Amino acid sequence: MRIVQKYGGTSVGSIERIEAVADRVAKACNAGHQCVVVVSAMGHTTDELVRLARAIDSVPDSREMDALLSTGEQVSAALLAMALQKRGLSGRSFTGWQAGIVTEQVHGSARIEDVKTEALRSSLAAGEVPVVTGFQGISGETVTTLGRGGSDTTAVAVAAALHADLCEIYTDVDGVYTTDPRVVAGARKLERISYDEMLEMANLGAQVLHPRAVENAKLFEVSLVVRSSFSDEEGTLVVESAGYEQHRVVTGIAFEREVARIAVLGIPREQHGLAKVFGYLAERGVNVDVIVQSLVQAETVDVSFTVKEEDTARTLRVLDELRSQLSYQEIVAEQGLAKVSIVGAGMISNPGVAARMFSVLAEGEISIKMVSTSEIKVSCIVDSQELDRAVQQLHEAFLAEAPEKGVTSKEVSVTHSYL
Amino acid sequence: MRIVQKYGGTSVGSIERIEAVADRVAKACNAGHQCVVVVSAMGHTTDELVRLARAIDSVPDSREMDALLSTGEQVSAALLAMALQKRGLSGRSFTGWQAGIVTEQVHGSARIEDVKTEALRSSLAAGEVPVVTGFQGISGETVTTLGRGGSDTTAVAVAAALHADLCEIYTDVDGVYTTDPRVVAGARKLERISYDEMLEMANLGAQVLHPRAVENAKLFEVSLVVRSSFSDEEGTLVVESAGYEQHRVVTGIAFEREVARIAVLGIPREQHGLAKVFGYLAERGVNVDVIVQSLVQAETVDVSFTVKEEDTARTLRVLDELRSQLSYQEIVAEQGLAKVSIVGAGMISNPGVAARMFSVLAEGEISIKMVSTSEIKVSCIVDSQELDRAVQQLHEAFLAEAPEKGVTSKEVSVTHSYL
Repeated sequence: MRIVQKYGGTSVGSIERIEAVADRVAKACNAGHQCVVVVSAMGHTTDELVRLARAIDSVPDSREMDALLSTGEQVSAALLAMALQKRGLSGRSFTGWQAGIVTEQVHGSARIEDVKTEALRSSLAAGEVPVVTGFQGISGETVTTLGRGGSDTTAVAVAAALHADLCEIYTDVDGVYTTDPRVVAGARKLERISYDEMLEMANLGAQVLHPRAVENAKLFEVSLVVRSSFSDEEGTLVVESAGYEQHRVVTGIAFEREVARIAVLGIPREQHGLAKVFGYLAERGVNVDVIVQSLVQAETVDVSFTVKEEDTARTLRVLDELRSQLSYQEIVAEQGLAKVSIVGAGMISNPGVAARMFSVLAEGEISIKMVSTSEIKVSCIVDSQELDRAVQQLHEAFLAEAPEKGVTSKEVSVTHSYL
Repeated sequence: MRIVQKYGGTSVGSIERIEAVADRVAKACNAGHQCVVVVSAMGHTTDELVRLARAIDSVPDSREMDALLSTGEQVSAALLAMALQKRGLSGRSFTGWQAGIVTEQVHGSARIEDVKTEALRSSLAAGEVPVVTGFQGISGETVTTLGRGGSDTTAVAVAAALHADLCEIYTDVDGVYTTDPRVVAGARKLERISYDEMLEMANLGAQVLHPRAVENAKLFEVSLVVRSSFSDEEGTLVVESAGYEQHRVVTGIAFEREVARIAVLGIPREQHGLAKVFGYLAERGVNVDVIVQSLVQAETVDVSFTVKEEDTARTLRVLDELRSQLSYQEIVAEQGLAKVSIVGAGMISNPGVAARMFSVLAEGEISIKMVSTSEIKVSCIVDSQELDRAVQQLHEAFLAEAPEKGVTSKEVSVTHSYL
């Protein structure tokens, strides 16, 4: 089996950790698998490099920032290659450009355009274990970085390009949970989750796997496993939803703290107000999350949306600038909010799930400020102080049933056969 | 004027130092010069990376070691480029491969084969200030490093390839001295020195400029200046000896501590003994310095040579192995020695300099164990305990005259005109 294993910053945070990772890679190789490893920078290396750059310039040049940050993964890749060699494996480090990770010409958040696999394929053919730097690529002769979640994205792209059978994402948690165990003691680890569910979970704040990586995994049909590099626990398999557990209506409860709600009131209908508001915010780099358009008055429109609480002041400034182009009546901002969401592919065929969520929250006397739904999730904006209680009550209502019925899919057994 | 400036590890050892270097580069650029900067890794970065690698493997793979070590200069180059940008200059970092530094396929001590200057030339043409990582290059798609003195070598190679008017080597001393000021209080800074003299001084232990860089500078006729990045002192100009100061017989006194002498006695003449001894030592990686063949007996030859004291045991082991191939009679080793040398291009036309050296040492009752001469230097092996006194007395005898006569060459004035 061809496996791409990706190890995050905590997993390679020290020499001891790198040795442990090398042991794990060796185990897979010795079990007859062909392995490609993708690594992040060691622990806080990236933060430290950012600190150095900021000491010179509060807004350092993005090209130089990428040149600087890309060194972090080069260090961990070279060290891991050495540790593999010590174990008798032909470890060989590859930088982004050496591995043929071609990106668009954007710095700090480049998207991968192509993986030119010649170098990796010859390395594998020569019996080597390629160790690829995550998070970075090349555009022309310029080094680029992929931004947050970049190493996950690299791993999935490499797995897709090499037609790997499996892409294992090693991190410091042992899988994807029904919700955050710090909030709900009874949170359970999921054996499997669909790409779409994972995407909603990831976007909604479950910081296990970056949404970009999940999107690409879905697009290229890469089977993902999220698991811990600190234990031999089986992880969570992320695969295409294949109708295998429609019985499970809700898969998980995701949430996000520190949300602010902004309402723009009295936008004239004839001025393409909504397009102007959100177009202008996007141009100015303000990330908007939930959008709700309230009741339409005769001549004007009201719209509410959420942003991260820390972006509130900036959002208000941007909207103020917009005033010269759009004669809205008023802005209202509310901080101290949070978002709680139930996620599950099973919702599609189970009407009434949203209603049940509202009633669970109502029973808990938790008032709902905004609602947003998609095919596989329902999100409610609530008071921040009531968030934990909301998560607990929803978990109790939707997920505290008997443990998942035994799922014995082929993939799962294959995945763990060598451990 | 086109200038290549090279800054060593101490010169870019902290953010403050990088800012100071940026100021200096900006000064040169603002004076109308076209600048290319070559940087070493920050302070002890390289040592720290070596420590990490050694923690994994005492003899790490050399390819991976190069991949690892090359990150050090990438960090300092990116940070310096940012600092230049803050000063309104278009600083742009180049790794070894981006700058087209092509080396042979050797790790840890690769020699530069070519500098493909397209990228640097377009960068200069675009009005940018290229900041090139020293110490590293590329062979095929593999990153290589140049070994000790590598950044000096990079700077000279880049200066030669770009036909720069001057190559400035910034370090933590303000020039080349007649001898080590820690040993002789009256040591004077030289305004200029010839390549050959510098080479003898460098090889003999004056650690200002690496011999490889000097050799290349001589070969490609690159004018070098050695100066301090910590002051505005004029440095020392290293140029082709142009008969400009034949009046100065001795330019400097170099020395080296911790030398051991090994004598191989009774080597049969008919067995090509000398070739076998030194061929075998070279194959085993033992660096031999001074070689002296003693009086030839009827049927056998005696030879003495010096090695670094720390290499004594290894040298004896290698010679012992050789015994099966060469029936010498005896090995004698003596430790606790040192080498002192007088260096000067003026010796060529001044016979009797060696004799004067011997008489100065004899007057000081310093016994000479071995002598070796070249056209522009005389080296004596003495007792380590007598080294400082030997250096002081030789300096007094050869160099304590009136300060150098005013040298007002065109190069010197051009060199410092923008400071």
